Amino acid sequence: MLKTPAYAALDARSPLAPFTIERREPGPTEVLIDILYCGVCHSDIHQARDEWGSSSFPMVPGHEIVGRVAGVGAKAGKFKVGDHVGVGVFVDSCRSCANCKAGEEQFCDQGMSGTYNSFERNPDDHRFDKSRPTYGGYSTRITVDEAYVLRIPSAIPLDRAAPLLCAGITTWSPLKHFGVKAGDKVAVVGLGGLGHMGVKLAVALGADVTVLSTSESKRADALALGAKDFAATRDGTVFKTLAQQFDYILDTVSAAHDYNAYLELLKLDGTMVLLGIPDAPQAVAAGTLIRRRRRLAGSMIGGIAETQEMLDFCAEHGVASDIELIGIDQVNEAYERMLKADVRYRFVIDIGRWASQDG
Amino acid sequence: MLKTPAYAALDARSPLAPFTIERREPGPTEVLIDILYCGVCHSDIHQARDEWGSSSFPMVPGHEIVGRVAGVGAKAGKFKVGDHVGVGVFVDSCRSCANCKAGEEQFCDQGMSGTYNSFERNPDDHRFDKSRPTYGGYSTRITVDEAYVLRIPSAIPLDRAAPLLCAGITTWSPLKHFGVKAGDKVAVVGLGGLGHMGVKLAVALGADVTVLSTSESKRADALALGAKDFAATRDGTVFKTLAQQFDYILDTVSAAHDYNAYLELLKLDGTMVLLGIPDAPQAVAAGTLIRRRRRLAGSMIGGIAETQEMLDFCAEHGVASDIELIGIDQVNEAYERMLKADVRYRFVIDIGRWASQDG
Repeated sequence: MLKTPAYAALDARSPLAPFTIERREPGPTEVLIDILYCGVCHSDIHQARDEWGSSSFPMVPGHEIVGRVAGVGAKAGKFKVGDHVGVGVFVDSCRSCANCKAGEEQFCDQGMSGTYNSFERNPDDHRFDKSRPTYGGYSTRITVDEAYVLRIPSAIPLDRAAPLLCAGITTWSPLKHFGVKAGDKVAVVGLGGLGHMGVKLAVALGADVTVLSTSESKRADALALGAKDFAATRDGTVFKTLAQQFDYILDTVSAAHDYNAYLELLKLDGTMVLLGIPDAPQAVAAGTLIRRRRRLAGSMIGGIAETQEMLDFCAEHGVASDIELIGIDQVNEAYERMLKADVRYRFVIDIGRWASQDG
Repeated sequence: MLKTPAYAALDARSPLAPFTIERREPGPTEVLIDILYCGVCHSDIHQARDEWGSSSFPMVPGHEIVGRVAGVGAKAGKFKVGDHVGVGVFVDSCRSCANCKAGEEQFCDQGMSGTYNSFERNPDDHRFDKSRPTYGGYSTRITVDEAYVLRIPSAIPLDRAAPLLCAGITTWSPLKHFGVKAGDKVAVVGLGGLGHMGVKLAVALGADVTVLSTSESKRADALALGAKDFAATRDGTVFKTLAQQFDYILDTVSAAHDYNAYLELLKLDGTMVLLGIPDAPQAVAAGTLIRRRRRLAGSMIGGIAETQEMLDFCAEHGVASDIELIGIDQVNEAYERMLKADVRYRFVIDIGRWASQDG
């Protein structure tokens, strides 16, 4: 086993602190990755603080991982040492259910192995091994089966690639799955980590994008990201002026908000896709859906093949995340700033610098 | 003008009573129809009692009309005198918006001309003529532009065809639009006028249909209608045993109910289509949609071409509505029985008998 520096939450109340974990030498189909960058996702905070009620400690968060292959197993042929690779929200799944076979591992019938706060699987039958927790990317290396590892195209700056592994695929998958195409009118609700990727990807797909955000403060950013229009929702008039204007709405907001008001912005046959999960259910009026045959849907990250497709698309279209690079020792401060939405638009931890100092 | 016997609500509080309206001689592209049968839709009650707040009086309800062509305009070539025809929920629309041109007149941008409690349109520009209210099928004849008239295939008994014009198309359209096909697992929630047609049509399409109803009392009926399974929802265990079982749910219920509980019965990528409108919005949990990429949608009647397709399908597959035939003088009593869900499954008024007595 490889003793590996990490940052961990030891319980739900303590700040993250240095911690040592063990990583395994790569098995036959695995690769060992020296982590270079890891994005900080809002779900890291939720889970480190046990806000979803499903946390195990110690917890090493981080599921937006970019690194360099440092070792490959005897039967692993997908990557070679030195390749730039990524790991996203999950590191394994059952591999035998219909969803896994269809490349939609995120919907594995047995449940995916989350990159952290979950469990590794037995190499033989791919069932959960509850004695081996998964630890995430706030650490200097990780060992993952090559089938769950992505190739990072050279055109994408590595630090700015990290958030693509979660924020990128979370917005890409619904755009593709629900059929967004050039010329479609797309609204992105909320301009945070998810929202800014939703704008970039929809724009790159040729859509006509409008950002809806509570206040005027993000107008300039929205337009700089490629949106054609911006509307502040706080005063409410936008719900009249933009009624029935959009083919799609990507709703990235996790705070309580009025789904009906946004659904009324959809054209006939329009689709609003929920990506954020408010604490409580929100009211939906049947008539709002019925009168224009609208759809309210949800979407959750994406499969491995789809994630690779997204990375390749980003390389081709010059898309990457907008980030603030921080040291691992700034992660607790970063959490506090994220809670105030004070980040444009994703913190990425410079793990490589830490590893070189630590080594 | 043709003086025509009708039954009308003179205000929101009074029972329906005999009333005389005028029907016009058919214009160049119109047909005059001697009405033979008219179904009684629950929305007739809502509107006659002004429960939706949009009623004009006097009101002649009825939008499930079957009759015989009694006259045709000079330029009307679609039907000839004696043909059996139907009229559904609308009798006109703007004819120029994208939805009308696409054959989805029910979503006309200007609003359709409802068969009653709405307005006729000017023959020249097809704009609403607010001086000419529309009167529905609780009357012995009606004059309608041939473009909004359906052909009733000879294989369908005329009385049992009437409810197809609303209940039939309201359930057919979502089955077709959302892609229900042979072998799909479909749940129909609620076994009333809409629900019983949903079961028959989904079964005829080859789907594997389960009826979900509050109590056991409708089990035998559900199976007789062709459902493979039935589950009473009142005790709640069904929400565990049938979790993630269905590709589609047709929700015909207008009473308040827990959308989330039903959404959890959908498989990955499953769709629940709302056809009923509860008085208040119902809560939807984002996580329920997100975890299995589910969709909650609405659907509203169907276009003229789609309605004709449904009628032809019914003729081919031996599908018709299950009805109780009543006299026009029983309509107030029928309303009371419908409010107690005491009808299997649609009242149809024998207008032809009334006309022959009245004439």
